[in-house]
This record gives sequence, C-alpha cells and structure tokens, in this order.
Amino acid sequence: MEPNFKHLLHSGYSHPTLRLWQEERPLLAHQLMYPIFVSDRTDSKLHEIKSLPEQYQIPVDKLVEFIEPLVAKGLSSVIVFGVLTRDDVLKKDETGQCALHEQSPATRGVAALKKAFPKLLIAADVCLCAYTSHGHCGILTPEGHIDHQKSIDMIAKVALAYAKAGAHVVAPSDMMDGRIASIKSLLYKEGYGNTVAVMSYSSKFASVAYGPFRDAASSAPSFGDRKAYQLPSGSRGLAVRASERDEEEGADLLMVKPAGPYLDILRDLRENSRLPIACYHVSGEYAMLWHAANAGAFDLKAAVLETLRGFRRAGADVILTYYTPRLLDWLKE
Amino acid sequence: MEPNFKHLLHSGYSHPTLRLWQEERPLLAHQLMYPIFVSDRTDSKLHEIKSLPEQYQIPVDKLVEFIEPLVAKGLSSVIVFGVLTRDDVLKKDETGQCALHEQSPATRGVAALKKAFPKLLIAADVCLCAYTSHGHCGILTPEGHIDHQKSIDMIAKVALAYAKAGAHVVAPSDMMDGRIASIKSLLYKEGYGNTVAVMSYSSKFASVAYGPFRDAASSAPSFGDRKAYQLPSGSRGLAVRASERDEEEGADLLMVKPAGPYLDILRDLRENSRLPIACYHVSGEYAMLWHAANAGAFDLKAAVLETLRGFRRAGADVILTYYTPRLLDWLKE
Amino acid sequence: MEPNFKHLLHSGYSHPTLRLWQEERPLLAHQLMYPIFVSDRTDSKLHEIKSLPEQYQIPVDKLVEFIEPLVAKGLSSVIVFGVLTRDDVLKKDETGQCALHEQSPATRGVAALKKAFPKLLIAADVCLCAYTSHGHCGILTPEGHIDHQKSIDMIAKVALAYAKAGAHVVAPSDMMDGRIASIKSLLYKEGYGNTVAVMSYSSKFASVAYGPFRDAASSAPSFGDRKAYQLPSGSRGLAVRASERDEEEGADLLMVKPAGPYLDILRDLRENSRLPIACYHVSGEYAMLWHAANAGAFDLKAAVLETLRGFRRAGADVILTYYTPRLLDWLKE
Amino acid sequence: MEPNFKHLLHSGYSHPTLRLWQEERPLLAHQLMYPIFVSDRTDSKLHEIKSLPEQYQIPVDKLVEFIEPLVAKGLSSVIVFGVLTRDDVLKKDETGQCALHEQSPATRGVAALKKAFPKLLIAADVCLCAYTSHGHCGILTPEGHIDHQKSIDMIAKVALAYAKAGAHVVAPSDMMDGRIASIKSLLYKEGYGNTVAVMSYSSKFASVAYGPFRDAASSAPSFGDRKAYQLPSGSRGLAVRASERDEEEGADLLMVKPAGPYLDILRDLRENSRLPIACYHVSGEYAMLWHAANAGAFDLKAAVLETLRGFRRAGADVILTYYTPRLLDWLKE
Amino acid sequence: MEPNFKHLLHSGYSHPTLRLWQEERPLLAHQLMYPIFVSDRTDSKLHEIKSLPEQYQIPVDKLVEFIEPLVAKGLSSVIVFGVLTRDDVLKKDETGQCALHEQSPATRGVAALKKAFPKLLIAADVCLCAYTSHGHCGILTPEGHIDHQKSIDMIAKVALAYAKAGAHVVAPSDMMDGRIASIKSLLYKEGYGNTVAVMSYSSKFASVAYGPFRDAASSAPSFGDRKAYQLPSGSRGLAVRASERDEEEGADLLMVKPAGPYLDILRDLRENSRLPIACYHVSGEYAMLWHAANAGAFDLKAAVLETLRGFRRAGADVILTYYTPRLLDWLKE
Amino acid sequence: MEPNFKHLLHSGYSHPTLRLWQEERPLLAHQLMYPIFVSDRTDSKLHEIKSLPEQYQIPVDKLVEFIEPLVAKGLSSVIVFGVLTRDDVLKKDETGQCALHEQSPATRGVAALKKAFPKLLIAADVCLCAYTSHGHCGILTPEGHIDHQKSIDMIAKVALAYAKAGAHVVAPSDMMDGRIASIKSLLYKEGYGNTVAVMSYSSKFASVAYGPFRDAASSAPSFGDRKAYQLPSGSRGLAVRASERDEEEGADLLMVKPAGPYLDILRDLRENSRLPIACYHVSGEYAMLWHAANAGAFDLKAAVLETLRGFRRAGADVILTYYTPRLLDWLKE
Ligand SMILES: [Zn+2]
Ligand SMILES: [Zn+2]
Ligand SMILES: [Zn+2]
Ligand SMILES: [Zn+2]
Ligand SMILES: [Zn+2]
Ligand SMILES: [Zn+2]
Repeated sequence: MEPNFKHLLHSGYSHPTLRLWQEERPLLAHQLMYPIFVSDRTDSKLHEIKSLPEQYQIPVDKLVEFIEPLVAKGLSSVIVFGVLTRDDVLKKDETGQCALHEQSPATRGVAALKKAFPKLLIAADVCLCAYTSHGHCGILTPEGHIDHQKSIDMIAKVALAYAKAGAHVVAPSDMMDGRIASIKSLLYKEGYGNTVAVMSYSSKFASVAYGPFRDAASSAPSFGDRKAYQLPSGSRGLAVRASERDEEEGADLLMVKPAGPYLDILRDLRENSRLPIACYHVSGEYAMLWHAANAGAFDLKAAVLETLRGFRRAGADVILTYYTPRLLDWLKE
Repeated sequence: MEPNFKHLLHSGYSHPTLRLWQEERPLLAHQLMYPIFVSDRTDSKLHEIKSLPEQYQIPVDKLVEFIEPLVAKGLSSVIVFGVLTRDDVLKKDETGQCALHEQSPATRGVAALKKAFPKLLIAADVCLCAYTSHGHCGILTPEGHIDHQKSIDMIAKVALAYAKAGAHVVAPSDMMDGRIASIKSLLYKEGYGNTVAVMSYSSKFASVAYGPFRDAASSAPSFGDRKAYQLPSGSRGLAVRASERDEEEGADLLMVKPAGPYLDILRDLRENSRLPIACYHVSGEYAMLWHAANAGAFDLKAAVLETLRGFRRAGADVILTYYTPRLLDWLKE
Repeated sequence: MEPNFKHLLHSGYSHPTLRLWQEERPLLAHQLMYPIFVSDRTDSKLHEIKSLPEQYQIPVDKLVEFIEPLVAKGLSSVIVFGVLTRDDVLKKDETGQCALHEQSPATRGVAALKKAFPKLLIAADVCLCAYTSHGHCGILTPEGHIDHQKSIDMIAKVALAYAKAGAHVVAPSDMMDGRIASIKSLLYKEGYGNTVAVMSYSSKFASVAYGPFRDAASSAPSFGDRKAYQLPSGSRGLAVRASERDEEEGADLLMVKPAGPYLDILRDLRENSRLPIACYHVSGEYAMLWHAANAGAFDLKAAVLETLRGFRRAGADVILTYYTPRLLDWLKE
Repeated sequence: MEPNFKHLLHSGYSHPTLRLWQEERPLLAHQLMYPIFVSDRTDSKLHEIKSLPEQYQIPVDKLVEFIEPLVAKGLSSVIVFGVLTRDDVLKKDETGQCALHEQSPATRGVAALKKAFPKLLIAADVCLCAYTSHGHCGILTPEGHIDHQKSIDMIAKVALAYAKAGAHVVAPSDMMDGRIASIKSLLYKEGYGNTVAVMSYSSKFASVAYGPFRDAASSAPSFGDRKAYQLPSGSRGLAVRASERDEEEGADLLMVKPAGPYLDILRDLRENSRLPIACYHVSGEYAMLWHAANAGAFDLKAAVLETLRGFRRAGADVILTYYTPRLLDWLKE
Repeated sequence: MEPNFKHLLHSGYSHPTLRLWQEERPLLAHQLMYPIFVSDRTDSKLHEIKSLPEQYQIPVDKLVEFIEPLVAKGLSSVIVFGVLTRDDVLKKDETGQCALHEQSPATRGVAALKKAFPKLLIAADVCLCAYTSHGHCGILTPEGHIDHQKSIDMIAKVALAYAKAGAHVVAPSDMMDGRIASIKSLLYKEGYGNTVAVMSYSSKFASVAYGPFRDAASSAPSFGDRKAYQLPSGSRGLAVRASERDEEEGADLLMVKPAGPYLDILRDLRENSRLPIACYHVSGEYAMLWHAANAGAFDLKAAVLETLRGFRRAGADVILTYYTPRLLDWLKE
Repeated sequence: MEPNFKHLLHSGYSHPTLRLWQEERPLLAHQLMYPIFVSDRTDSKLHEIKSLPEQYQIPVDKLVEFIEPLVAKGLSSVIVFGVLTRDDVLKKDETGQCALHEQSPATRGVAALKKAFPKLLIAADVCLCAYTSHGHCGILTPEGHIDHQKSIDMIAKVALAYAKAGAHVVAPSDMMDGRIASIKSLLYKEGYGNTVAVMSYSSKFASVAYGPFRDAASSAPSFGDRKAYQLPSGSRGLAVRASERDEEEGADLLMVKPAGPYLDILRDLRENSRLPIACYHVSGEYAMLWHAANAGAFDLKAAVLETLRGFRRAGADVILTYYTPRLLDWLKE
C-alpha cells in the first residue's frame, strides 16, 4: 500500500533553501539579556555567588571591565540588580529609602554602563526587597501587610531614579497591583514617557526556583513569604489576567518568570498580547541544568541550547539568562 | 487628564534593540522566487514581453548568462516556465505530449540551471496549457470537458520529467482535482519521494489579473475559460478547502495566487496550515504597479516594497515576483 | 480507485436552495459609501481631478444635482471632503480655524445633502490637513512637532460642527492619539452622543497610495511627511492595537485604509472586533485599476468587481470607493 | 464623571443604514425544512399524532394537497419520513428490506412531491428503524449487536432508492460508523454523485427528547436502547469528532440533533466546519414549548421565535422544525 | 476494506481509568446555586408558587428550617430573592427605598442564613423591581424613562445593605449600564472591596421565559416592558459586549440568563473571559421540563440531567436552578 | 483615585466555594502513570538504577510485591518497560525477535500485573531498542538506515504480543512513520480493535534529557543517534504535525515527551486535538529536580508539585513520572 504522502515529511526540507523556509523562530544573540549583580563593595574583586556557579557580585568599579569582553562578543542588553553588602553608606530601612540614593550600586552601575557602552540596552530591575530591612518587595503596614499605595509610590520613584541614571528600560519585579500605572505616570510627568520602556515582570509566579537568586541579591524576606503578591502556580486564568492588566496599564514589554516551568503561559501571552514578551530563565533553572550536567545526566551546552530554543519556540522575544556569556560563544559555533 | 498609557506606543521602540524586538516578519532576499520564461527560440536573443515590461522570454542558450548576475546578487530560487514559439521540433497537440519531450525548453532550462548553479533552488511550473493545442490546463473529453483522470496522469508524468531533469521543486498550477496525490504517488514510485518537493498552486483563483502572463507564456485557452477549474474569487470557504485538500494529499508547500487581492486568504492559510506558504505576485499586479507609477500615482520602489512587506505581514514565507531582480538591489540599500 | 468524497464539491450546491445556504458575504449596493469632494468654487462647474479620472471637485451649488441620479440608483451613503480653492473667504492658517466656519464647503455640503436626501446616510471626513496652511493633520508646536492636546481639541470641534450641520457619521482621518475619546466626549456633552456615529480611520497606514487624493483634496503637507502619526506598513501588531484603542475609546465603526494592500489586517479586525468594519479603496488603488485596464492588462469592470468582492470576503461591512457610481449600475446587471 | 463611551451602544445603530450594517444572521423562511410523516394508509385522512399536537401522519394520496398551501406561503424544503402502519403490503423484517420497496410511502411521497413541486427541495430521512421488526437503526448480529458492515450497505441502498425517486438530499439519521462513505460511494457509482447532497445527522445525541417522534414514526426499538450508536450528551470531544468524521467522509451538510440543548455544539461546528450546518428542533422540544405555553408559562409565538432566532445566532443555516407551518405566517408579520 | 481507525472510538474508553481520562467537565453538587424566595409573611407557612410547582415563598422565620436538610445533603450556595407581600411595614414606592430597610426580608434572610450556616455561600440578588411601585428595575424619570444615574446609585446602596447583612456575593440583575462600577466603588469605599464578590447578570436577555419568576417574586412591571434594558435575543455581538463591559468594570463572576436558549453565548463567554461563568436555568425552562414530563414527553430526571450536563459542557462553572433540591439527591445515585 | 476594579482580584476568591469555582485542572492521583522497569534477572532483588536514584530494575518475580503497596495507596496505572540483562534465554539480535518471546520480561510482567491487580490500568511500552543488538528503535537496512516497512511490521507484532498478555494500553515509543496505523490494523484483525487503546509517543523530541533512561532500560544505540526519527526540538510545526498524523492514524491518546521543556507543545496539542494528552516527565527532568534539590537549590517536594501542576495547567490529562510513589503520599497531605 502507498504511504499517506501527507505523512512523509522529508521532501519538505531536502534543500537548504527549503530548510530556511521551514525555519520558525531562530535563537539569536540579540534576544539575550544578561542579568548582572552590581554590589557596593570596594574591594575591586568579583565575588562568585556560591549557589549560582560562575555568576558574580560585581563591584561598581569592576563593572565596565567585566562587561567589555561580552559587548565585544555581541552582548546587546543587560539587566542590572543592585546588591547592598555593607551598612556604612547605604542602610536598609523599613521603606527602602536607600534605593533612591544616587550612590546606590544599581544607579551607579547603570550610569557607568551607559557612559562606557553607548549602544548597549540597559535595563534596571526595580524592586524594594534588596533595600528594605524586612526583605519584602513593598512597604508594610504596622500589622505587617503590604501598604499598597505607599509601595507603588516608592517603586515609581525608584524607577524614575534609574531612568535619570540612564536606563533604557525599567523592569518592576515586585508584583504589587497598580505599579505599572504608577511608574508610567511618574515617568510621563518627568518627561521620560516616550524614551524609557517599562518591562513588567507581569506573570511572575510564587516559585521554588528563586532560591539561588536571593542568595545573589541578598534579598530574602526576613519573615513570611511572597505568596500574597506572587501568582499561584496552578492558575492559568490569574496568570493571563495579570499580564493583561499590565498591558492595559501601559507596559511596553511583558515577562513570564520563571520561564521553563511556565512555557504554556508564554504561549498564552504570545497569542493574547501584541507586546514583545520576555522570559526569565531563573536561578533555580540555571542550577538544575548545572548540577544535572555535573552529575553526568547530560551535556550542559546541548541541554542549555535545547532549553532556550524551546523558549523561542514557545514565543519569547527576549530571554534573561545567566548563561548569556556562554551562549555568546555557543551561538557562533 | 493623564493619557491612557497603553495608548502611547513610542516608549516601546525608542532604542534600536527595542526595535529589533518589535520586528515581526522582515522581508529577506532568500524569500523571493523569480519566475522565468524559457523559450525554444534559437536566435540567442532576449525577447521582452510587451505586456510585462522588463521581463523576457529567454532562449535556453542564454539562460545561464541571464541568471548569473542575479545569483551573484543573492538570488536563491527560480521557477521555470517553458514557452513554445515554433512548431518544427515540439508541436502542441490535444494531450500536450511535447511537455514530456526531453528537448522541451522547460526541461532543458532546469537541467542547465542545475548544472550551472548548484546551490540555486530550482522549481518548475507543471501544467499542460503551454503544450496543448487548445490551451487548456488539462486533457479534454470529446465533448470539450476536462478528462480528469487522463489529465492528472499526464500532469504527474510532466512533474516526473522535471524531477528527472533536476528540479528541486515541482509546482503544479493546473488546479485539477487530485493532481497532488497523482504527482506524489509517481514521484514516490520513481524514487523522488524524499528529494523533490511539491509546491501546490493550491488556492488559485479565476482572476482577471493573469492577462499579461498568458502573453508571456503563450498559454491562453483557444476557447472557453478556466472557471471550471480555478476558484471563484468570492468564496473563502472553497479557497481554504482547496489548500487543505492539497495539504492532505501531501503537498510540501501551498500557494495563494494572485497574492495582493487575496491577502486575507494568505492569512487564513497561515493560521490553518503548518506548511510554508508561497504567494504569486502575478502579472496583472505587476502591471498595475508599473503603469500607475508611470502615470505618476506613486513611486515604484516605495509601492513595490509596501506591497511585498504586506505579503510577509499577511503570512507569506515565499514570494514569486517579477520584481525580484530589482528587489535584490533594493533590499540591500 | 474511488475519489475522496470530501473533495467532490458539486453535490453541495446542485439545487438553488442549497446554493443559498452556501452563500457567504455578497457585495450589495448598500455597503458602498461614495467619497465626494465638495469645493468652495462658485463657478457652478464640476472640475475633474486630473490624477483621479472621472472624479470631480463639486461646488456646493452643484452638489444636489450631482448626487440626485446616484440616489435614484440606490446610493445609500456618502462621505464628504471639503476642498478650499480660494482664499478670499476661508483662509488656511496654522490651526485650521476655517474648518469651523459655517460657510466651509464641507459644512454647507453636509447641510445641503441632509435637506435634499432625507434617507441618505451622510458621513463627513474630519481632519485639519485641508485647512491648515502647512497641510499637516494636526496643530504644530513651534518646533514643528504635533501639539497633541491642541490637535485633538480642535478635531473634536470640527466633528461637532459637522454633527450640527446634520452629518450622521463623523469620520476622523487624522490618526492623532486620543481623538476618538475627544470627539465622543464633546458630542456627548453637546447632546449628539446617541445620534451621531463615529467612524474611525483606525488602522490607517503611511502608504504610497494616497498621492492622487492629495491632489483631489489639496491637502498635501508643505513639508515633512505623515509617518509620525500614520502606521508603519509592516507592523501587524501596531495596526491591530490602533483599532483596538479606538474601539476602547468608543468608536462606532472601524476602518482599514488603504484596503487592498491590507486585506489581512481587515481579516484581523473582523475576527478581533465586534464593530462593523469599513475599508477605504484609496485613490492609488483606483489609479492602478484604471491605468492597467487602460493599458489593456484586464477588463476594468471585472477587475473592480473581483477586487471589491475580495474586500467583502476579507470582512468589510462598508466600502468607501470612487467606483461607487459605476458599481450602482454594475451590481444591477 | 463621563461615561465610558465604549459602553454607550446607541450611536452605532441610530440610522437605518447603520442598523443594516449591525445585522447578524436573520431568521428567514428559506432556512426552514419541514419534517413530514408519510404513511401507507389508504383512508385518505390525516391522522394527528397524539404526542405531537397539530402534526400528522399523511397518507401518500393526501400529500400534495397537504403541502400545496405551504408551498404557496413560501415553504422551500421538506424532509420526508416514511411510516408503516399496516403489514399487508410492506412487512417489517429483521433487515428492513421493505425500505427498498418501490411502494414504500417514503419513496412514493418523494416522487409525488418532486412531480408536483418542481422547485421544492426534497430531503429524505434515511434510516432502518421504521422498517426493521426490532426497531433498531441497523441490522443486528445473531447476538443482538449491530452488524456494522451489513447495516451501512443496506443504508446506502435505501439512500439510493430515495435518490432514484427524486430526492435532492438524503439524510442518514442512523449514526452507524462509516455510513456517509458508504452512501457517497454508492451514489457516485450510480451516477448521483454530483446531484444528490448528503445531509448527515452528524452530531446526534442519545437524548430524552425523541419520545414523541417515535410515536409519530412508529420507530421505537422493541428492546434495548440506542446508546451504543448515539452520542453521550456530556462529551463535547466526541460530538465534534463525529461531525468532523462525516465531513471527512464527504457529507455536504452536517446536523446537530436535538438543537436547543446543544447550541454550544452548534457553535462549535460553525467554527470548525466549512459546511452548512442544520439543526433539528426535535419533538420533545416542540412538546416543551407547546405544553408550557398551554400551561400559561409564556406566549407560544414569542417563545418559538426566541428559540429559533437563537438557533440562527448559534450558527444554524438550516432548521428542521415542526413549527414550520406557523412560522411561514409568523415570519411575514 | 479496513475501517478508518481514527473513526473507531471505542478503544479509547474501554477501561474505567481510560474513561476518567475522557471526562471533560462533570456536573458536581458544589456547582449548584439554589434560588430561594424569602417573603415578609408572618404566618410561618411555605406558600407554593403556582406557576413554579414545588417552589415556595418562604417566610423569614421558616428559612433556616427549610434550608437545613438541603445543607445536610451538600447544598453549598443559595441566592436570596426578597418578596414583599404586605404593605404594613415595608411599602413599595417610586424609588424602592424599602429595599434598604433593615427589616427587608432579603436582608433578614441573608443574616439568618449567615448565622445558621457558616460554610454556606450566600448570594443576594440585587434589583429594584420587587421594591418599586411600578415594578421596573430602576428609578424612572417623570417621563417614565429610566433615570440612569439615580438607578445605579440606589442599586449600589442595596448591594451594600446585603453585604453588611453578610452576603458573600451580591448579584445585580437589573441590567442598567454602569451598575457594576457603581457597586464596586461603593463596596470598596465601605471596606468590602476584597471580601464581597459581584456576580453580574451580565448577558441577560429580554426573554419570554421569565413569566413564572415574576409570579414568584411579585415583580412584574405595572406598565411597559424591560426591552429597554435587557438584551435583544438575536444579537450575539451585544451579548458578548455586555459581559465584556461588566468584566471591565470589575465583576468577579459573569452570568448568562436564561441558560438553555443561550448555550452558544455561554460558550462564547467561556472562550472570551477568564472569569468563572454562571448560568440561570430560569423559571420558564423549569416549567417546560416540568409540564412536558407531566404530559409524558419524557422522564423528568433524565431530561433535567441531560439539560444541566449540557450547561457544564457549554462552559458553566455555576448553575442557578430550581431543581437543586432534587439534584442533590440525583447526583448521589 | 479609585483603583481599576477589574484589577483587584481578591474578591473573586474570598470564600472557599468561590475558590472551588476558580479551580481549573487540579492534579489528581488517577492522572499519574508509573513507569516501571521489569528485568529478566532471577536473583529476586531490586537493582537501583544509578543515574535514576530510587528507581529500580525489578525482576518479574518481585513485581507484584513491589507494586502492591502502591496500588493500596491509589496507584491506578503503570507502564511496563522490559529490560534484558542476560543472554542465556533471550538474545538481542538485528531485528529484535526476542521482543516477541512469551518469556520476555515485559510480557511476563504485564501478565503478572493483570492477574494480581484486576483494576490497575496496565500500559506496555512498545519499541525495539531494548531488543535489538544495535540498540536502534527499528530494523536496519544493510546500509544502516531504518527499514521502514519491516520496522513497523515488527512493532505491530510486539504490540499484539503485549495485548495478548493483557495490556490495556500499548504505547509505541519508536517514532517510525506509520506505526500507529500498522498497530491499529493488526490489533483490529486479531480482535483487539475495541478493547486495547494505543497511546502514541506522538510528539517525541530528540532531547538530551533521556540519558538516565537508557541506563535504566539498557537501550542506548551502539552507534549513530536517533535524530533521524525523533523530532528536532525547535520545530513547532513538525511537532504538531506528528501528533496530528498519529491522531489521523487512529491513536487513542497522544503524548508529549519530554514534558517540561515542551509545555508549549502540550498546550498546542490540548487546543488542536480532541484526544486525551499524556506527557512523560523524563529521566533527565527527574535528575535535574533531584540533584538541584540535593545541592540545596530548593525543596524537592515543593519543586515536584509546582512542576507537575504546571503539566496539568498546560493541558496534560495523564502524567508519566518516576515521582509517582512519592506523589501518592504527597497528594494526600
Ligand atoms: Zn522584590
Ligand atoms: Zn495551465
Ligand atoms: Zn489629514
Ligand atoms: Zn433510526
Ligand atoms: Zn429587576
Ligand atoms: Zn526505542
């Protein structure tokens, strides 16, 4: 019996030009955004983050030197996280005031990168958890709940500070209701409405996969957890509504975080939104690939590439990943 | 009152990297397929086609010379149409037998290109209308109707002849029911099942826009018209069903023809099919742009680029267009 | 071998009642809206527009006489464009004040039609470009950028003037952000909220196909172009967002302009919106059909009908076309 | 505060032409198909069906007289059910042979209507349950299960008999797997492939709402029930798959039965199929409206019209309903 | 010939675990919400509602006793309607003031249930028609039209009164534009923003099927009808827009009413909204099943179960039905 | 300013019954299928698989004892893999004949489970790679390519052997074109057409995550890799086409493998198929969670539950996971 010709796929990609026509969404270097941890240390040394092998807390004065070879290899964007390690200059307090300080490592880091690399897209993560004494992402009421209005006012001010320092993109990761509108409104009033984009961590789940990051950013909450403001992992409806809300409030880019365990949500956003979609390949995902490769389960490079090609296939336009330095090499091979 | 921030679009594309992330489906040179008319003339001259300015009937012995500079500019695919102008060697008859002749200009043209340009993707249009004495795309019954079974048997043989001559893609344009299955079956039996792709003219409409082409290919029917086998222009349902049928019969690529007046059908196929989709920017469309530009209505280059970018936006992976030579230059600017 | 019965289509439309059940979206006369150019001339003569053959600038005092035979043939709607040719009464200035004048030809034209043809649906195009000395669609800042707030305030006043003159539909073609909300708000305050519909030129592209129109309406910009407020032709996302925005601001009808090169966007709107969708078969498209037919590429009537049936198939409920007078005859045949 | 203009709907339909543009899917007389019960009685009397008030078993010799006034009012299609009441001429047996007899009331009824009303579309219900001694819709194995192959062979022969008698549409209601392919194949071989349409009862549920019908058609099974071949009411997946299967086998029209309790399935088919969709407003639905109106719950005419307009809104192109005679009057008011 | 294996469905559900995997949306007791009529009578007797057999007007002091056995059987939610039968304490007037009275039977009923059954979800229907002397759902202008602003102010106050009495859900059934926003705003200001859900009767049609209810609730309008604020039954577009509007204004749940004749709209909402969707199986639907079963057309239990399983299949998360008491038993069998 | 009420989500889930109504697709024990490795060892000992901690190769004679406590905890399905460790009885050869031997551990394991646990759903993995001397999933030609026809003939025989041994589900994992049709056809001829379901590994990617499995099943290819028959990870189109093909050939269930890196494909299948969808949480995914938890990156239980709830959210009806034994406990907490 003859085969069902519809089911013989080979003839459709038997010539290189045919294969180009089959190609869907290739993984390209300009789609990578590298998350970097800029610290207030003054020892001019990179501090490797124990739970995030080969990633570092970088003192401001080493930043340009650290990034330079990556830019040379084609790095086109970074996202800056500030890390406070000392309490002589900037002290964490209840409301995270030090986030606004012009000597904050995030602010200084953004400014240094902007000056050194005029073509590099510089994003700045916006949150309070690295600056509050309690480690929560917002300001608390006396009873220990989130004070919603105070939190989003403060977050907008932080975003403005980074915009003033030169960030092209501000990226609120706090998940407070209404923060996109609050940031957009303040940026607009201050004249940054058309020139600074807001990338919202819009579908950010309460995930187990953030552990190593908190170590990197020294931002773990001192009590309680973040389930009151991050999304429950099982609810597709709430996840999509949260991104839709941020799109309605004026976000320029949306994000799914973590990436891997939520690829279906990435697909949902791709089909429901008209904005570019980012995804954050988080520290726990980095660790899983790293440790399993070390334990001999598979080859690291092959596993990372399969994973990230999946993010593209699912719909990501931008990928935040700690593997960016390696990928800048791997993608050239 | 504050603006609705969702409605301010500028911040989303204020940096070059942001603009790259907004980019949807750029128009690239490798997506163009150039239709060429290869004739049986022996005068070694290009004959310009009156109703299709700047397009030529090309004798086989001038073909390589004609294509060479285009390949140098990045041409990656052509589709060959054979044109009979004499009746001393190959004579048109009732059943189009001469289409199978190894001296047919299409067969010789395919072979010459294959030999000269090993990386060029070579497609061959498959039909009978340029080889039958009556100019219809199939074989007729004594009463003048299409003899369906005889037609698709013959069409499969023609496709096989081109495959043997070296075509990577055979492209049946006849619109007879069942020809994809007939071609696929014969190619499979003869060992070309995995290496020759079938690009079906699957949603081909009975359009007024083919006039100049028939002049180019000397393929106008001597009586009647083609409404019995080409699609009625108003019917979305039939158009989509025709492409679905061809996908079910094993086509490797689908096509919408003409392109411009049927962009909505292109979108329909893009969303209903998993195959690469081609569209044919036909001779009447070429003429409309040409004559209106000449009459001063607009600038030709701007109009062609706007038109073809629209084909990409609507979903085309491959574009057959007579403007290919100009576009190879324009796309580099 | 038996055929695949699914692929034999004839039995499904072999009886007239069966054919009625197959019918999709026929092209009907009441779906045509005729664009007319009403001038301030006093010579009581029709002035044919050179680049738009068979179309005229019509002095107000000839308007009823000109439209009467079309209404008799079944014309059910028109859209009025005002054209200033003199500068003794109404003078173009920086802010287009004369658009508000009760002697403007658009206002007088609307009123004359309303009085003469009580059943005719009268739409009025709303823009500033025919009334500003610089020819841009909005009011400019001293630096030559669009002054957004002043522009939409003025545009709302113009819309109100036409509503007062008797227009059933006001149709803003300017593409300034926020003008739908501005118009809706003013109409509502003035008591026209329920009786005057707003047809937004919502997905209007920066196209090369507007050339002849500008000649007709004497509205070409004296410097710069309109790319800052019209849509880039390649971006599906922005086009759909622009229409969604206008639907959110309260538009009663949406529009795609031009029609032909953007049929895929028409399909997108049809599937994403619950409003009736209009499309504008623009002057460049008119010219292409006209000149190619004149050059013998095809028959004009057949080409126009194929084109417009395509607009219906793609999803248009209303078609603005200069071929309306001919179509009122053709559709009866 | 200003209203949200998007939420004020009136301006969108304030002029009659605007209302025409809003119109969705009106209920029209030509969409009604009247189910009629043609019996083998020879008493020339209409027998009212007790459980289906105002509906009758009609002897063949009264049929034309009965239908004539309805045709005069605009009836455009009927579907004929044959009813055996005697056993002197046609006797029910195990395999329903008498369904093939040229004196069967269905066959004679179809022929009589075809002769009397040349424009009327005549459909014939195809099943075995009114002709088998056991009242099941197929032929049984000795163990009492459906003999699948024998059943669909027989059903195809019945369909052919009706086609020969003049039916334009044959409508298999039996729900045996493969009967559409079987019917299509036989009609094709016998030369009816292009002229007789097949309307499949494709998504027919095992519903409680068929009781009165069985009384009308004297077709209740003498043992067991039909759950082995009719669809379980809760399963959307199986319902859609059943219609898709029939579309693949070549059905020209699909059907949902019953209509009212399965409007969501009607919507599903409308969005997944490219065929016209019928729905059968079954006897139990007729009874519910009738008895509730009689008990004073509501006005019959208003309730029937609301119900059937819902069928149109949900996607029906054709409606089979016992209220057809009343509707021919009601729709004119 | 072999069958098409895709079309043989049985192997997919031949084992109980396979059947569990086929199960789509089972009908569960916790999805039922029981509508109850709480009256101001003081005779401590249930009054059966003549047109709604087996349903009662229940005096407040009999309420707990009446509900107790249902809660024991697994009733998890009720919706309370207040009924005024006397005019010595609460008198209907033009603006329905008595709806706010703390002695209104609805308010007292909610409070009594909240106290007696701490786990029961208590919803309260919010409307004015049972409290206005004219029986309309809003407050009228002197000319007899709806006074829109006064109506939604009053409706918000009624909702607040029920929230204060302990309702978990307030359910506005009035269909006035803007009432969801009005209720949400007042609840928010008074501190109920996070703890009281709003279930909007969002797609409520002007149906003939409400007759018996008006008898039950003594809420028929004394003049005119409700077509000015309930939806026309034929319009899919308006129905979906109305629910979308309420979702935009902050509704927590949407509703389709009636359920059965609008299953296609239920499917539409399910696919367009991310909120839970309720449907109201209204009194006329109850009556149709009841009377047809009594007339012998079918078995009541089988018919009710088929009907409600259809609501689930079409997309309902919550079903309001008078058959709840019977279903609590039937679902256990 | 008031918040946008649509964006306050809390009121929608403030009561336990409301939360039940929000619940989408809970993770339930009956959705888990446990993969077990049954070996031919005779030492009556469990052999822990080094690269798959806490998973074992189980000799046939220990199987019932091993499974018993899991069934007691609610295990409802297993999938059996046979492992050959010796070559005295069953010897691997070029064509995998020993897979058909009635003493194969898979066959004996299926039979033992069927006898011991009459309610347990027993699936058997069908492939040749554990039985061929070269370790490929099909039979090879002399040149080392897959001999397609011989392979699918053999695979169908293996499936039949397991069906005869008592498997309810046969699950071909080989990815040869046409194997579903081949298996279905043989099962049908042998009388298992209606009682044995086929679960196709339909979208199975060439992934790096299978390493530990090959260790468990001793099935690594001795040369070459499986890229010629497993899917390229980047291609959404091919992945969906492969599952569609298997659905067309008659599969009863589809599968995505691996699960986690392909959640977007799971969503695609859920929205394009009407079959139940399984996903295989493969050995490399098991290893990643295990090793990262051991390295302190997160808590194992929390990470596994978040991961699997994601599979359900993305659309899985059935989950194959090595964590099944732990989950049977965790889901009860
Ligand atoms: Zn934070
Ligand atoms: Zn041809
Ligand atoms: Zn303008
Ligand atoms: Zn039957
Ligand atoms: Zn009311
Ligand atoms: Zn294998």
